[in-house]
Amino acid sequence: MKTFRIAERIARVQLSAVREILKVTERPDILSFAGGLPAPETFPVEAFAEAYSKVFATQGAQALQYSTTEGFRPLREWIASRLSKSGVSRTADNVLVTSGSQQALDLVSRALLDPGDTVLVENPSYLAALQVFQSYGATMETVPSDEHGMRVDAVERVLTSSRPKFIYAVPTFSNPTGATLSFERRERLALLAKRFSVPVIEDEPYAELRYGTSRLPPVAAFDPGSPVVSLGTFSKTLSPGIRVGWLAAPDALLHTLVVAKQAADLHTASLTQRAVVALLESFDFEAHLDSIRALYRERRDAMVASLTAEFPEGTRWSTPEGGLFIWVELPYGLSSDEVLPEAVREKVAFVPGSPFFAHAPQRQFMRLNFSNREPALIREGMRRLGAVVRAHARSGIDLAASSAN
Amino acid sequence: MKTFRIAERIARVQLSAVREILKVTERPDILSFAGGLPAPETFPVEAFAEAYSKVFATQGAQALQYSTTEGFRPLREWIASRLSKSGVSRTADNVLVTSGSQQALDLVSRALLDPGDTVLVENPSYLAALQVFQSYGATMETVPSDEHGMRVDAVERVLTSSRPKFIYAVPTFSNPTGATLSFERRERLALLAKRFSVPVIEDEPYAELRYGTSRLPPVAAFDPGSPVVSLGTFSKTLSPGIRVGWLAAPDALLHTLVVAKQAADLHTASLTQRAVVALLESFDFEAHLDSIRALYRERRDAMVASLTAEFPEGTRWSTPEGGLFIWVELPYGLSSDEVLPEAVREKVAFVPGSPFFAHAPQRQFMRLNFSNREPALIREGMRRLGAVVRAHARSGIDLAASSAN
Repeated sequence: MKTFRIAERIARVQLSAVREILKVTERPDILSFAGGLPAPETFPVEAFAEAYSKVFATQGAQALQYSTTEGFRPLREWIASRLSKSGVSRTADNVLVTSGSQQALDLVSRALLDPGDTVLVENPSYLAALQVFQSYGATMETVPSDEHGMRVDAVERVLTSSRPKFIYAVPTFSNPTGATLSFERRERLALLAKRFSVPVIEDEPYAELRYGTSRLPPVAAFDPGSPVVSLGTFSKTLSPGIRVGWLAAPDALLHTLVVAKQAADLHTASLTQRAVVALLESFDFEAHLDSIRALYRERRDAMVASLTAEFPEGTRWSTPEGGLFIWVELPYGLSSDEVLPEAVREKVAFVPGSPFFAHAPQRQFMRLNFSNREPALIREGMRRLGAVVRAHARSGIDLAASSAN
Repeated sequence: MKTFRIAERIARVQLSAVREILKVTERPDILSFAGGLPAPETFPVEAFAEAYSKVFATQGAQALQYSTTEGFRPLREWIASRLSKSGVSRTADNVLVTSGSQQALDLVSRALLDPGDTVLVENPSYLAALQVFQSYGATMETVPSDEHGMRVDAVERVLTSSRPKFIYAVPTFSNPTGATLSFERRERLALLAKRFSVPVIEDEPYAELRYGTSRLPPVAAFDPGSPVVSLGTFSKTLSPGIRVGWLAAPDALLHTLVVAKQAADLHTASLTQRAVVALLESFDFEAHLDSIRALYRERRDAMVASLTAEFPEGTRWSTPEGGLFIWVELPYGLSSDEVLPEAVREKVAFVPGSPFFAHAPQRQFMRLNFSNREPALIREGMRRLGAVVRAHARSGIDLAASSAN
């Protein structure tokens, strides 16, 4: 009976530790690459201002009244149509508007998890998702991932022997690794979900942020009968501060999620939902996405170039084809947990990789965000961070050399 | 281990049943007194429009970025200062901005409840609160209430023999009964909370809506050392569609609630919080409250007059000194569950009283909302409803007479 509370306490402690890291890195004197913040210069401030004016002028009081839990119908229709374009067959009736995708993760956990249940995740995986699952008393079963994303052959092995309540995946430009799940693995994952009747929670916050490659079909696109819940958000495309995301799920599951949402906060702000619809009606969303992509591609390239120039030999990373993060592996068994305090003293910050591992944390990784700083600051930040890492690497080598003597 | 899920399922079923009632009553051809909707003509649409314009003009991108979980500092300060005015000593550091008070109830449950725990509530009590507590696997321990609110002598008896995780109370213009907890009971409740170290969740959505009487100090005002969590909202004073509420709690508890909020949805929309602050800066909130009070007082009086004129002798209610609801007790043992279908056929609706009882549901009550319809429609609605009740009463009497023969 106490599993739930104990797990929640553990989750609290972990979450608090990361919060403390992020708080330090928010100091204005620190060049932080720790958060996952979009670049504020991409926010369409004027278009939002016009959209809100329009809503107040035309929908006034209606926009300020209580509304339905499922969400504003025209917004649900826009989302369903966007999903259709990526090959996912869902209607507006399958869509629930949420207060950001974080809430979608929370509602899914609330609807599907009992204390003691298992969730299948990649190792490493998105930290805040792990913490939500743990806060509901679930334990994580992990499969490894490589440069093509989650190892779906390992997923199959797990499913034949145990029965997780769901599989959580960030298939496109994963957080933290930046990897993208291959076409073949997506197809196979959809098949496995159906065969074993285990839902896949397909979390796609970054899918629109692609810097060159064409889009792969979402896991939900392969088979409409496969139990896949699609999670999306406007946080990385319009604004995270409005807190509007969504989930799309098969009918039966959607009903349960709607009831969970009603208990959680009744509904997402009707005014905000109407303003988003007004904005999308009078705004070139595709051109806006293109401008974000161009900006972030330049920043990604600046970071890759600086990593090459500033970090010691043996440092490894793979250039992500989209998203917000580069996952850097330090050489010589250096621990990023140990590098961080020195980095902060040099006024540069990142998130160490270890908390992203649900099991068997590896300490040699760091997650670097490239979306939130302009190229000149990225270069300066990587110069500082590279120097700290080189110094650590030298002292490690010296130590190894002295103990070899 | 399964208590949590089973309880959640029960809560789902209950919530769904009430949702179905409310859905029917939302039909435009039905005069509904079922919901708890504020009058849309009270929403300060123009002031909101100006506030949003101001935020976009002066804070632009900052208002659209991710923000802190605790909430926008100037809004937390406004809330703390408002609490201070009512005698509650909390600083901005004790305030967490939530997505409506519904979310505050959810976060409190999440932070404090384990499956199998007990929550102490009045019987009857606010339906959606009961459902949230049950969804976390808690069971309800009830105390009766009378015209002076929750029977605090009964609370004391319960506390000496069992240890609920918290006490939930709507002390001012309670939902559903409209009753207000007396000064002496408030004082005693604060004392008991401290003596037994059992938090009181003091839910005050209606406290600003008073129609004549002066305000009693909140339970939280009697002793700053008493573990009271104050819940409030802008839903009944500015707009429910913006989803902005708050809680104020002692330091240690606030920290846990902030972590729960972070897992639930990261933070409440920063844009909306800034717009509310901009509105409050340039807007006469007190004059606005006075105009709402005048409007609702008139509607309450219209409903009381119509109840007197249209309902059969033996019908009882007490005139609430504030809030949104009148709690009507039908005569002759009539069941409001049985009256409802006939009322809907006559195109008038209400919420039956039974779901508000956590234990031993009583069927002779109906909850009537008076805020959302103008007096002429209240009179027409009560005429229809009174006729349905009279017809039921007559058939009951006839039945009694015929079975006596």
